[in-house]
Amino acid sequence: MSNTMTRREWMASAGLAAGGTVLAGYGGVARAATAVTPKSGSPIRMMYNENPYAPSQVARRAMRNAFDEANLYAMREAAGELKQLIAGQVGLKPENILIGAGSTEILNVAGLAYGMGGGEIVSPHPTFEVMNRYGKTIGANVIRVPLRDDYEMDLGAMRGAVTEKTTLIYVCNPNNPTGTIIPDRELRPFCREMSEKALVFIDEAYHEYVSHPAYSSLVELVKEGRNVIVSRTASKVHGLAGLRVGFGFARPDIVENLQPKMTGTLNMMGLRAALASYRDQRFQQYSREKNEEAKQIVMDALDRMGREYARSDTNFIFFHTGVPISQFQAAMEARGIRVGRPFPPYLDWCRLSMARPREMELFAEKVTEVL
Amino acid sequence: MSNTMTRREWMASAGLAAGGTVLAGYGGVARAATAVTPKSGSPIRMMYNENPYAPSQVARRAMRNAFDEANLYAMREAAGELKQLIAGQVGLKPENILIGAGSTEILNVAGLAYGMGGGEIVSPHPTFEVMNRYGKTIGANVIRVPLRDDYEMDLGAMRGAVTEKTTLIYVCNPNNPTGTIIPDRELRPFCREMSEKALVFIDEAYHEYVSHPAYSSLVELVKEGRNVIVSRTASKVHGLAGLRVGFGFARPDIVENLQPKMTGTLNMMGLRAALASYRDQRFQQYSREKNEEAKQIVMDALDRMGREYARSDTNFIFFHTGVPISQFQAAMEARGIRVGRPFPPYLDWCRLSMARPREMELFAEKVTEVL
Repeated sequence: MSNTMTRREWMASAGLAAGGTVLAGYGGVARAATAVTPKSGSPIRMMYNENPYAPSQVARRAMRNAFDEANLYAMREAAGELKQLIAGQVGLKPENILIGAGSTEILNVAGLAYGMGGGEIVSPHPTFEVMNRYGKTIGANVIRVPLRDDYEMDLGAMRGAVTEKTTLIYVCNPNNPTGTIIPDRELRPFCREMSEKALVFIDEAYHEYVSHPAYSSLVELVKEGRNVIVSRTASKVHGLAGLRVGFGFARPDIVENLQPKMTGTLNMMGLRAALASYRDQRFQQYSREKNEEAKQIVMDALDRMGREYARSDTNFIFFHTGVPISQFQAAMEARGIRVGRPFPPYLDWCRLSMARPREMELFAEKVTEVL
Repeated sequence: MSNTMTRREWMASAGLAAGGTVLAGYGGVARAATAVTPKSGSPIRMMYNENPYAPSQVARRAMRNAFDEANLYAMREAAGELKQLIAGQVGLKPENILIGAGSTEILNVAGLAYGMGGGEIVSPHPTFEVMNRYGKTIGANVIRVPLRDDYEMDLGAMRGAVTEKTTLIYVCNPNNPTGTIIPDRELRPFCREMSEKALVFIDEAYHEYVSHPAYSSLVELVKEGRNVIVSRTASKVHGLAGLRVGFGFARPDIVENLQPKMTGTLNMMGLRAALASYRDQRFQQYSREKNEEAKQIVMDALDRMGREYARSDTNFIFFHTGVPISQFQAAMEARGIRVGRPFPPYLDWCRLSMARPREMELFAEKVTEVL
């Protein structure tokens, strides 16, 4: 199966060819549909996979209501409430839920618990580097397994890299920076098998954006009692990146091992905003639909230019620039747009985060000047 | 020097006998001065050393203004700004400043960095247990040195407990739960000498509340290039406990060792609220003055009852109940007031956090029923 495609194939597979329904004026997130002019010194952010519509009005209201408890150590109570909510939504129990300062903290604490004392992490490359970086900080060895030619994780090669020394195996699905998913029929048996040998960390940060029919969350492996952690985040479809809330799903014994090793503590604004936002299906739907709209504008432009890109089930698109990424970054910055960082070895590819549709139209205009 | 005193001695030493100036109606923090009736099921909080006046109007405004960046990964920029501000206020450089999720994260990450691989922590007992707890989680050995009979840390005994195996020495000044300070003329030479043997962690969470003339911050030891960390927090006089912002001051090499070992990440609401609050001298002054007022009400009641208490330079008072703390907790809870937890071996003492003066009057009334 190829993970590169044209816009037409994409629309067909995402069921959008017949015209997706877009909540045009959802809540207070609608903005004036005027042409976009980037401000000098403050480029349009297309570099960190942020959600341009968040926080929603529902999350803002929750934060305002939480001001009166911002002086209190009442995070444990709010966290308990959030664990209940999330457990119900994913079909687990509260004792299966870890909450961290973003899924970053879940990644870090796993890197700590399974990396210290000479642990060894097997990871795809390129991928989201947070766990590898923390692991190296704490003295772990990191084995990086290159992606396949179609930008998917190479599960066969990863299986081959796992040895007696392996303590932690990282999979990111959809993967970052490529945006591609691994079909459930391949990943599920891989994780089941590998979890007999080491802890398997399945990063599902972009789960809510996926439309690919071959994808499935692996949260069921937690229910099966496997040696796995599945992570999610409030930073993407909920857009609460600055508030730092993320989740790990695991067996209670794994939760109890990791929880006291977190150096951070949860904050009340993030907890209250997440409690409100995870109850609010409408904003999530809106975020997803606007994201699809933005992606179509970009894919349309890339198709017109004949540029290759990986099929994205996320809020970013990884595409072939054909020129060094540093050069492309500079040229776009000069045009008021900040694009993603280099992801070696793909040094002539760009990870482009979706901003608003109007902003992506500006990107489409500027990219044709540059490439 | 004795650390127990009567109310009159206290007022004299704190310079309050002549009548402190109280900003009666500061900002929006003034509340209606009606009699206090605790709500059933929601006791008045006198158990966690929280600041009942926070967050200030200045901090609230900063949070509202930060809603539009709550979706962004822009914490590094805001943290840089906060490091600049704090460095200027304490006379250090930004590269001397660690920011964590409360000083708790600074304590945890020190416990991690100096506790892993068989570290040994020397700590007073009782004290604030966060670092000891994290250290034990990560496999460190914790040596606890009992306080002296006057509730001060026993520096001589701590010196005697430090061996070749010691990696970390904890001092908490003022100490928690006793509220007492160690005179600068004793603590400074102790920390200088001990920092030749191990890292000395000086916890100054209650620094801003101290009025004792013999006290001094030890931030100067950082300037001297000693092997120390001094911690402070936005949770107390600034009252931002639920937002999780705290600081560590140390040599750049220590900062660089600890920073990447934090599993957490800062949140935007906390950073913006702290940036505003640390610029706002007026609210800090108001918090301090109301805290003195509250303490006087409690000391007055304890004096009338002939109860011993430790001299407090914090926002709590440690006093002798003469009955088991669990029994006292239950009796006060039944009267709508939640007091502090047990601090062994002082199991007939209570750590009482200062709420509003009116609420402390209610405490004074209820405590005479109970004891």
